[in-house]
This record gives sequence, C-alpha cells and structure tokens, in this order.
Amino acid sequence: MSVETVDHLTSVGVTEMEKAEHTVKDLDASKLTIELTNTPRPVPELNSKETWSCRACSDHMVTVTWLEGKGWQAPKIVPYGPLTMMPTASCLHYATQCFEGMKVYRGFDGKLRLFRPDKNCQRMVISSTRVSLPAFDPVELEKLIKALMKVDGATVPWPDLSTGWNPSGGGVPGLKLLASKNDTRAWPGGFGYAKVGANYGPAFVAAMEGRKKGYDQILWLFGPDYQVTEAGASNFFVVWQSKEGTRELITAPLDDKIILDGVTRRSVLELARTRFVAKSAYLSDAIKELNIIERTYTIAEVEEAQKEGRLIEAFVSGTAYFITPVSAISVHDEEFPINMDAGHTGHYAGMLKEWLMEIKYGKVDHEWGVVVDED
Amino acid sequence: MSVETVDHLTSVGVTEMEKAEHTVKDLDASKLTIELTNTPRPVPELNSKETWSCRACSDHMVTVTWLEGKGWQAPKIVPYGPLTMMPTASCLHYATQCFEGMKVYRGFDGKLRLFRPDKNCQRMVISSTRVSLPAFDPVELEKLIKALMKVDGATVPWPDLSTGWNPSGGGVPGLKLLASKNDTRAWPGGFGYAKVGANYGPAFVAAMEGRKKGYDQILWLFGPDYQVTEAGASNFFVVWQSKEGTRELITAPLDDKIILDGVTRRSVLELARTRFVAKSAYLSDAIKELNIIERTYTIAEVEEAQKEGRLIEAFVSGTAYFITPVSAISVHDEEFPINMDAGHTGHYAGMLKEWLMEIKYGKVDHEWGVVVDED
Repeated sequence: MSVETVDHLTSVGVTEMEKAEHTVKDLDASKLTIELTNTPRPVPELNSKETWSCRACSDHMVTVTWLEGKGWQAPKIVPYGPLTMMPTASCLHYATQCFEGMKVYRGFDGKLRLFRPDKNCQRMVISSTRVSLPAFDPVELEKLIKALMKVDGATVPWPDLSTGWNPSGGGVPGLKLLASKNDTRAWPGGFGYAKVGANYGPAFVAAMEGRKKGYDQILWLFGPDYQVTEAGASNFFVVWQSKEGTRELITAPLDDKIILDGVTRRSVLELARTRFVAKSAYLSDAIKELNIIERTYTIAEVEEAQKEGRLIEAFVSGTAYFITPVSAISVHDEEFPINMDAGHTGHYAGMLKEWLMEIKYGKVDHEWGVVVDED
Repeated sequence: MSVETVDHLTSVGVTEMEKAEHTVKDLDASKLTIELTNTPRPVPELNSKETWSCRACSDHMVTVTWLEGKGWQAPKIVPYGPLTMMPTASCLHYATQCFEGMKVYRGFDGKLRLFRPDKNCQRMVISSTRVSLPAFDPVELEKLIKALMKVDGATVPWPDLSTGWNPSGGGVPGLKLLASKNDTRAWPGGFGYAKVGANYGPAFVAAMEGRKKGYDQILWLFGPDYQVTEAGASNFFVVWQSKEGTRELITAPLDDKIILDGVTRRSVLELARTRFVAKSAYLSDAIKELNIIERTYTIAEVEEAQKEGRLIEAFVSGTAYFITPVSAISVHDEEFPINMDAGHTGHYAGMLKEWLMEIKYGKVDHEWGVVVDED
C-alpha cells in the first residue's frame, strides 16, 4: 500500500499555507477515479524473505495533485509506479514532506480492518501543515485509504491459526535500546511531534551506530537531566513500583511536543486506564492495578528503579513495532537488563498486545477496528 | 544550474554509511559524459521578472547515481528535466537529502568565476553524511560543477557597467527581521550546521508568519536567554561599541553546531580580521578598527546596545542575500530600528560587500575567485 502526498512545487513552498484555508475542503474522495493495473505482481509468500524485507508494494497507489490557487484535484487510484518531479521540487531540497504508517489486518471473520485510521489521518494534517504543505479534510483521506484497501486488500491473508491464537508470542526476543548521549532527536519549539521526514533522516546516523553496537533502537534522551522521550521508531513505556509502593505505567508526556503522538501509545494509555484499575476483571496474580502516568521522567529514575528491584518491565509501542518488550538499555556505556519474565514479554505488555490484537483481528467488536468494505 | 545528489533508495537508507568508506573514492569526474540538449530554452532578459523570480533553470544538470555495494557511477551532464523515483524513496519520506547553493559570476575580464567552491563542496560532504547519504571526494564535485558551468555558463552576462561600479548599491533597502519567540530552528546535538532539507521545511511556517507581519526573515533565537543564532536564510552580524568602548563585529560561534557554517560568513570574518585592524590601509573616518568576535550573545545585548546608542550596524550574509543591511528587528512584539547611515548600507557592511564583489567579479585577483575554464 502506498498513500503519497506529493508536492510538485518549487521554491514557492513557503507561500502554500496562505492558500490552505481556501483549499481545506478541496480534498474530495467522491471524485476518485480508479485505473487498475494490467500487470498485477505476484504476492510474496507468507513468511517469505520477501515479505519480511518490507520492500514489496501492492499494485496500486493513491495520488492527489495540489495546485496553487486551485487546491486538491480529483484523487486517483493508479498502478503503483514511479513519480516524476523536477529537480527543483521543494520536497527534495527543503523536506516539505510528511508521511503516515498504517497496517491493514484480515480478521477471524475474514473482514479487512484498519486500526484507528482516523488518528493517522488527523495526524497527517498536523504533519502536513507543520512543513507548510496544504491542509485537507482527514475524513476524506480515510475514505481514500479505504478505497485503496478495497482495490489491493484482497491479497491480505487470513490470520494463520495453525499454531493457535497466541498474540503475545512465545519467547519474543526483547529489544535492546541504546540511550542517546550527545545526539538530540527533537527540541521544544521544533517538530518532534509531527511525522515529517525531517525527524527521520538526521536520526539514521545514531540508529546505525547503535546497530553496530548490537542495539535495535536508540532511546532518545533529552536535556541535561537526560529525560526519557521516545525510541525514534516507537514510543517507550516503563512499568515500575514507585518508591511509595504503587505500581505505575509511565511514559513521556505530549506537552512539550517533542515526542510523536503515537496511535498505539494513545491506545495503550486508553486501554490501561480502563482495564488496569481496581476491581477490573483483567487483574490477576500477575496483573495488578496500575497508576497510568504521563510525565517527564529521567533515565536515572529508570536505572534507580532497576537497581532497587522496582523495575517491572519496559516496552515500546508503535505501528511498526506494535508492542515489543525491552530486554536491556545501555546508558552511557553501561548496560542494564530489564526483566522479561523468563524470555517472554512482560505481563502488562503481553496483556496490552493481546487486547490490541483482539481489536485489530476482530476477535472482539470494537470501534477502533474499522472494517473496510470489500464488496 | 542544478547539481543534484539523488538517492534512489528505499528504506535501506540507514545502511548506506556502512558502505561510505569503500565508496568515498568512487565519485570520479574524469568519467563524466555529456549529452547536450537539442532544445535550448530562451535565456531570461536581464532584470526581467522571470530572472528575479529565480525559477528559470539552465539547460543542463549533473546527475550521479549511487548504487549500494557499488558506489558512485559515472557522472553525467544531461538536459535539465524531471527526475523519476519510486514513491518509497527514502528522500521523500525520511528527508535523506541535502543541497548546496552557489552563484557563478562573469567578471570584468569576461571570465566566469565561482566563489570559494571548495567550501561548498566540502560542506556538502558534511551535510550528506549527516543524513546517512554516501560521502564523496569534494574535489570531484567541484570538477563536476565547473564542467556544468562550461556547458551552461555562456548565458551568464557580463556585469552591467552602464551605471558604473557601485557594489554597495545606493539606498539598499534594509531587511526587517522578526526574532523567533516559541519556535526553535536548531539545537545542540541536532543538525543546524548542515545544509540538509530538514532545516528548511519546518522553518517555513515561522518565515511565512513573519512575512505576513512585514518581516523579511526570522532572526532565530535559541534557549531561555534568547541567544542570537542566524537568520535561517543567512548568517547574522552586528557591529557595536562595547561597554568598554571598543568597536566589535559580533557573530554567533560554530561550536555548538546549531548555525550554518556559511561561506560568506567565513569570508566576512577572514576579511574583517585582516583589514579592520590597526594601521590597515582600509581604515578611514567612518571605518575604524574592529575586534572580530565569534561568541554566544543574546538579543538583550543587542537591544541594550541599541538603547544606549552603541549599536553601529547589523547585516546578514549568505550566498542568496550576499551582504544585506538590517534596518529593524522585532523582538517580542517590540520593534527597534538599526542605523543604516541614512538609508544606505552601513559602512562596514558596505566595505565587506565591495571587497567580496571585487573578488567575485575579478576586479582583484584573489584565490577565492575561482575561474571556470570555458574554452
């Protein structure tokens, strides 16, 4: 699948937002035209190397042209293929670009579902206008994504039930994170909250240095007190016993706009706030009540909790990484391990993952699992 | 003219630098091939609207393909035209992109000159690797730029001498700058020093808000003490009388890597350090000795100097804006004027501009004015 907002603009990028107010209603999914490919490509085998490389694209894409003074033109679904643009295009020089990442799931009932697509579409408007690209009605974008799914979604396979329903996975390898030292991903007054290209390319050097040292992602710290922010490709959570003896789920706040307002992050918090509470049917011996807290916290607090045996688990969340436990963090060249319950995902992460999968695959009926009409 | 480093890459952008060491010697200008256009475009009239719109491109461009595991392929000069790339190209999603801006000048002697092209080429390597794009030998890039100038440079006109040699211009309108308030352009541990797309698109919103209020550029402040950094499209200088009574030329330092290491900035400092000194032949009644200082300074210091009558002049420097005086700065909704010597450029800015133009147009022989062989 590919949904692209391509700007065929030159240096006038800077004047675009002046038009935004007048074009905001222009994106209109009802004007969609569809041109199907004559040469559909083979669908990669389930679990093949090709599938896992994440390089295969589906057969079609949505394109919408935006013209200065005219706004959004009729959207098109066309065969997936190269884009052409002039070398002076501002998206190539000035990073006037943004993107979104979503997955589509075929459920137990055979139906295709998107997970909270409204959130992605709303965020794309925020990202787009943050880099002076035009705004649009996010509801129309969601319609276009569903239209593309209707065309290309037939290739999405049914869930593999041959091994049973095991959403937490058995022995999921935990991620190892390398805490940033001198590099800073984002800054208050910057654009860390937006899904704009400018947040990604400049972070590759650190990510690659981390990989060379054997770490899966950078854990981005911020400021002289080394506040924990996010993992770059995902948000970050810890579960600990506070010094006062209460169990807490902690993650960085959105206030200063330096971390991405992740859809999975938001969903984790919403589920945790309703299910990890006193008298909840979801509590058990392993799953106790939690205080859910969005606040600024430092890596020193995490280290201290680990040293004092109060650190219960840590995990990342995101569309790409879903819910994945963290098994170790290296801070300033010293690595400390995090409990993963004997190689499995932590109890809380496991529960959250299961709940989210139940929604995504339609095992439960939930408004976050948005069915795509394939008729 | 257009010199592009295009990456035909997908999500493997992150692995590119691993190859950089092996490909650094691969860019080889001696392998250049040239395909001339059959349909040369009309050259815009001197001083026409088309010329000043800066939208006209010359007839050719340099393209060089970089392949994973193979490195830089043979460079090509080809007719200027659209690029094609897959929608998954990392440069469109992750801002793995960088650029440079240079001008070419036809001098009094009819020769074409570039101004310190080695500096731009060296900086492009720094920018490229900052976003995990491959490195290259900057000397080879300079050769390619000269080769392009040889092909397209014939259209660059002789300097217009009908009005005499008046490099400082008469009554140059000064720029009005709007100091940033809540927005932050760059931060320590980031990438503000590199000419990467990620520094530009996210700054457009502030720039546009400034324009709506009647300001030409944003003066980017940094930190809780509002340090003066740069103007986004140019570096920024002030000349003042210090409280101790010495005349000083002040600009932000490069140490924390948040401002661009501008070629014009560097040249201004180098000329000022050799010519605005005691017993210099360049001193006069209006032009007195200066201490040249790169240091962190705050907008409050500039305001204070202005209020106490110690602010002598301020100007921006850059390839696009060259040396342009600043006539006013708005700080937190309060605007203060800056002396422009009765509507003209300040004395120091005027001298610097004249010296640089003498070099660029070959009025003096100087190693910074690099002649392009057009035979």
